[in-house]
Amino acid sequence: MSNNTYKPCDFVIYGALGDLSKRKLLISLYRLEKHNLIEADTRIIGVDRLAETSQGFIDIAYKSLQSFLNNEIDDKIWAQFSQRLSYLKIDLTQAAEYQQLHSVLEPESRVMVNYLAVAPFLFKSICQGLHSSGVINSETRLVMEKPIGHDLKSSKEINDVVTEVFKEEQVYRIDHYLGKETVLNLLALRFANSIFTTNWNHNTIDHIQITVGEDIGIEGRWEYFDKTGQLRDMLQNHLLQILTFVAMEPPADLSAESIHSEKIKVLKALRPITARNVEEKTVRGQYTSGYVNGKEVPGYLEEVGANVSSTTETFVAIRVDIDNWRWAGVPFYMRTGKRTPNKRTEIVVNFKQLPHNIFKDSFRNLPANKLVIHLQPNEGVEVMMLNKVPGIDGNIKLQNTKLDLSFSETFKNNRIFGGYEKLILEALRGNPTLFLSREEIEQAWIWVDSILSAWANNHTAPKPYPAGSWGPLASVALLARDGRGWEE
Amino acid sequence: MSNNTYKPCDFVIYGALGDLSKRKLLISLYRLEKHNLIEADTRIIGVDRLAETSQGFIDIAYKSLQSFLNNEIDDKIWAQFSQRLSYLKIDLTQAAEYQQLHSVLEPESRVMVNYLAVAPFLFKSICQGLHSSGVINSETRLVMEKPIGHDLKSSKEINDVVTEVFKEEQVYRIDHYLGKETVLNLLALRFANSIFTTNWNHNTIDHIQITVGEDIGIEGRWEYFDKTGQLRDMLQNHLLQILTFVAMEPPADLSAESIHSEKIKVLKALRPITARNVEEKTVRGQYTSGYVNGKEVPGYLEEVGANVSSTTETFVAIRVDIDNWRWAGVPFYMRTGKRTPNKRTEIVVNFKQLPHNIFKDSFRNLPANKLVIHLQPNEGVEVMMLNKVPGIDGNIKLQNTKLDLSFSETFKNNRIFGGYEKLILEALRGNPTLFLSREEIEQAWIWVDSILSAWANNHTAPKPYPAGSWGPLASVALLARDGRGWEE
Repeated sequence: MSNNTYKPCDFVIYGALGDLSKRKLLISLYRLEKHNLIEADTRIIGVDRLAETSQGFIDIAYKSLQSFLNNEIDDKIWAQFSQRLSYLKIDLTQAAEYQQLHSVLEPESRVMVNYLAVAPFLFKSICQGLHSSGVINSETRLVMEKPIGHDLKSSKEINDVVTEVFKEEQVYRIDHYLGKETVLNLLALRFANSIFTTNWNHNTIDHIQITVGEDIGIEGRWEYFDKTGQLRDMLQNHLLQILTFVAMEPPADLSAESIHSEKIKVLKALRPITARNVEEKTVRGQYTSGYVNGKEVPGYLEEVGANVSSTTETFVAIRVDIDNWRWAGVPFYMRTGKRTPNKRTEIVVNFKQLPHNIFKDSFRNLPANKLVIHLQPNEGVEVMMLNKVPGIDGNIKLQNTKLDLSFSETFKNNRIFGGYEKLILEALRGNPTLFLSREEIEQAWIWVDSILSAWANNHTAPKPYPAGSWGPLASVALLARDGRGWEE
Repeated sequence: MSNNTYKPCDFVIYGALGDLSKRKLLISLYRLEKHNLIEADTRIIGVDRLAETSQGFIDIAYKSLQSFLNNEIDDKIWAQFSQRLSYLKIDLTQAAEYQQLHSVLEPESRVMVNYLAVAPFLFKSICQGLHSSGVINSETRLVMEKPIGHDLKSSKEINDVVTEVFKEEQVYRIDHYLGKETVLNLLALRFANSIFTTNWNHNTIDHIQITVGEDIGIEGRWEYFDKTGQLRDMLQNHLLQILTFVAMEPPADLSAESIHSEKIKVLKALRPITARNVEEKTVRGQYTSGYVNGKEVPGYLEEVGANVSSTTETFVAIRVDIDNWRWAGVPFYMRTGKRTPNKRTEIVVNFKQLPHNIFKDSFRNLPANKLVIHLQPNEGVEVMMLNKVPGIDGNIKLQNTKLDLSFSETFKNNRIFGGYEKLILEALRGNPTLFLSREEIEQAWIWVDSILSAWANNHTAPKPYPAGSWGPLASVALLARDGRGWEE
């Protein structure tokens, strides 16, 4: 573990009794413990407004593991893990209560890492409470979850609140997609392999597709989702983040500064979508009742708590053009929706058709090569290429063949870690490369806001699509107009 | 089989009782029969100087199958196959005896395909005998095996003899390497896949290696081999043919004319090797005693029938430069030898190192991508590339990973046909694309003759290498001088 050592931390979870903490953070921390990746002296401090003892918090953590670990709890690991846990009851809106943190923190020997697992309206109180209690030093870090605002203005407000107290380099904005193996492997694919590096531009690539489909619906959070919509909920963050990793220029190195700067350049180069072209470049959808995985499910407007006149989109498809030298003429098509036929996240790099077909006697339309990067449900990389079918026919017969790299099979002995595990560990290590800078988030909002206001301006209603489908037919038409089709 | 029909043939084998006929031709024809690839009306006529009946020839064919088929003989297939066979005793040096062919040929309904499975000194008699007997018409074909001469002059003499009687388009010069699946798949890889097409030049490729190693020694044909040497025996034909398929420009189509013309352009662009640079560009080797596959074997000069002062090479390694736009600065390294540690034929396309390494914290020298095309013992294609090792380390760890396309596994239901089967069938079909044109062979000789005369001029003695090794150390040095190494 020599290259993995780091300063011990006081990892403080605000909203420790909430869903995110119980479903993700505590589970991920336990898994890191299991793989011996948490420094011996690191402590985990749960903070929430409910009266609870440290032992009560430990019991809650144990129950969370029972529910969400998907694995037996290892007694020895649990014993080690649980002794790190303690709890503080703090009303997060009361600045004076933050003084209690002094009772558990050890600033001389541990770095304070604050994880905000609470609604954004509390961010300001927390930052100010931390500040006034005097627990912040130059090493202190702040980890934030999406949503960081719901438009540029609110995002700026949050960032302003935070940066009154923390310097930009102390702030770790999480997008858990950036902790996924295949997203990180994009860096390796693109920048360690000449067969792809030399092909990664408008000369060879025809277009790129990014798909993030969720088979689930609204899952009891209708009211929150209805104010948000799929564009803000998924595309502004996850899909645009994937896009920046696919599209960015080679960074000079893997430092946070280099990576962030290349990602910002991509976001700045996104061609604006305005009221003038929004109808041709975007598709809004809203699911109606249908069947997902063989089960009948209600439509968005029939969900519990639904306002039946809602025009919030649960599906969005967008054609994105990147106005820079590398990607001139190469559209990126993104789509994301709720209640798709299955859970599926993938990137498809479609190479150009060859200029001339010498095999036309046996294959009239040679399919173009494709690089498919699977993120969910399984991670893996596939290259679709043409090979000669062995045989003795007079014509050379070709067949689309898959060169396959399935991560879980190829790297049998390497555990695939989840995005949260990876990113929590990076926060403990103090490595901000895989987190989002303020400027990235604000650039993403500038572009997304323009779409939102174009929709509002045009009163673009969402088109219905049955649950269990890949969105409205207009999404098919979006690509068909360009002579293309979505990856099946 | 609709796209596989062709006019029935009279397939006449000269030297029908010889080794090539018994070990390869009859076996291949039987296999084609088994796969229903021989037209019902096609006949096979054995011709040799020994007194033999048709039934005797049929018995000999059966025995050959028993010895060399490596498979059970199928009674039903054999019944079908054997009724095609007949035999004529012809002293090939006696023109008058060729009249007998009239008794079996049916020129109105069958195309005569003459297969010369005899020593080249008989080619002239055969051509003249066929001519004077009046059996040749415009459809008649002549199939020839290597060696077609042992230098440019003798090659021209043979071709002159043949072309006195046959037009160039009637002559099918076989190199059985061109019937191999992976050689044909080179066309698909190169011209049906943009990820390789766009990379196939000096911008992306560092160098290319072609290896043809035989673990066998001289196998009782010392005297023949000693007059020939490895350069003539293997490199002038097989390795240069593979090289032309790897290096040629995209042909306009798959016609014989287009392919031959591109191959000739490559051969013409080979930079001459002369007495001035032969020592630095070539390595000659001759094996001494050693161990192959755990068995002690004698050296070349200790083989039965050896002349102990022979300086014939049994191994040759050459650096080839191709002086054209595509391959400027990209050397092709070829090596071929007897008594190598194993039987192995492969092409390795080594891509360039990337210009900049952003992963240097975890991988100081990024290995370059490689495309490995295996021809023997198994056929297959591999892409060696770098992927991120799944895991949660602070540094991104990379690992060289193989994307693998093994033909026999991927195309489980497709039988892999041998080179002879493929090419005999192409001769029956009358498709000359995979055969060698006169000009190709002569261009290859021009280049090879220059090396031979440079060696003679410099009295370049072969360097010893122990049987069971990949040639003399000088072969390693040949690449080491350029900062490269042979594929392990």
